[in-house]
Amino acid sequence: MDKKSPVYEGKAKIVYATDDPELFVLYFKDDATAFNAKKKAVIEKKGELNAKISARIFSYLQSHGIGSHFVKALSDREFLVKKVDIIPIELVIRNIAAGSLCKRLGIEEKKAICPPLVEYYYKRDDLDDPIFSPDHIFFMELCDRETLDRIRKQALKINDLLQSFFDERGITLVDFKLEFGLDSQGNVLLADEISPDGCRLWDKETQNIMDKDRFRKDLGDLIPAYEEVYRRIEGDIS
Amino acid sequence: MDKKSPVYEGKAKIVYATDDPELFVLYFKDDATAFNAKKKAVIEKKGELNAKISARIFSYLQSHGIGSHFVKALSDREFLVKKVDIIPIELVIRNIAAGSLCKRLGIEEKKAICPPLVEYYYKRDDLDDPIFSPDHIFFMELCDRETLDRIRKQALKINDLLQSFFDERGITLVDFKLEFGLDSQGNVLLADEISPDGCRLWDKETQNIMDKDRFRKDLGDLIPAYEEVYRRIEGDIS
Repeated sequence: MDKKSPVYEGKAKIVYATDDPELFVLYFKDDATAFNAKKKAVIEKKGELNAKISARIFSYLQSHGIGSHFVKALSDREFLVKKVDIIPIELVIRNIAAGSLCKRLGIEEKKAICPPLVEYYYKRDDLDDPIFSPDHIFFMELCDRETLDRIRKQALKINDLLQSFFDERGITLVDFKLEFGLDSQGNVLLADEISPDGCRLWDKETQNIMDKDRFRKDLGDLIPAYEEVYRRIEGDIS
Repeated sequence: MDKKSPVYEGKAKIVYATDDPELFVLYFKDDATAFNAKKKAVIEKKGELNAKISARIFSYLQSHGIGSHFVKALSDREFLVKKVDIIPIELVIRNIAAGSLCKRLGIEEKKAICPPLVEYYYKRDDLDDPIFSPDHIFFMELCDRETLDRIRKQALKINDLLQSFFDERGITLVDFKLEFGLDSQGNVLLADEISPDGCRLWDKETQNIMDKDRFRKDLGDLIPAYEEVYRRIEGDIS
């Protein structure tokens, strides 16, 4: 499948058109951004690791009935994906309090969250992706009540599946971000990526940080951490 | 009812204990604050006008079945109120897009909102009163699902009543803030104040601003605007 012109370039990925109007190529860049792109870097190999980890996770989720845009990996850092119109809502599912949640609401770090908390952010870089609520979503007509309900249920099911998946591999899934899109038939599909860029992953034993917080907090050793995530979910990197 | 020691001082009011443990005195100050107290001033007579306008509105609401902490006015700027434990949630009900909603989410100013939008803010000065959602409220155990449901319904009923009330007096109720509290029997009561400090009120014909946005936006003539609100809802100020 040849990729043609780029149709969209995000902070960490580029979307390319293909000969098939229903299919896109998703290219994972090495660009790292944090704090709504106020902090930036290029971290060699990050894109490749995110692509490989995401491919593994999408495959796992598909084998458990979670439809996504992922078709197959084309190369180390390229996916073939179904074309979807991204719903401009980022869902964050939280199992343990960390990051912006603690800062914004004065919640104690590492507090367990049960049942998991679902947050909605408006995907708008120029507004710094503000948090909002279902009432805002309906007023702004970003999606209807039934679709949001379906997305929320799907997100919680994904959380259950991923919590088990990571737990069996010695990793605690603290929180993670999801995006969904609509395909040409109006089906809601999980989209974007699921990688240590958009998840908080802690080593179950040591609580060692294995995600993009290493970049946000200047902890260094981001690539070894992502490689360790990949090793645990896939086996050694060849 | 003699007031004793102050039990709480907020940005615009002081709460005093009385001889009766079930009753407080609420004193309306002339202090004006905006942008989470980053902008401050003292505006002579503001406290008195807010007290008079609030008294009129609480009486109107009580005559329509909305229970509140308001017992009676004791003086030009003092209320006798039932003692309540304030639930630390500020509800904002919006009928027309304005202010922070537009800035935060890129929504066009003056866009009609139908059905009205209910927003929840965490009442925490040290955190700048962040917006949050029912899911955060339940996780933080600020109130239970049934109580929040009751508060939301009450807020929407108050919105209906106040929209008619102001409309008949040539004023558009753009948005407003409400707080609720629990009395010693566990009843949910409307609390705080309802005044041009916490409402956006526009003249129906001219769209002239008759609320605290005159202070926020340095438009001047705040007292004449508040006096005009009071004149329309009560008759001439003696």
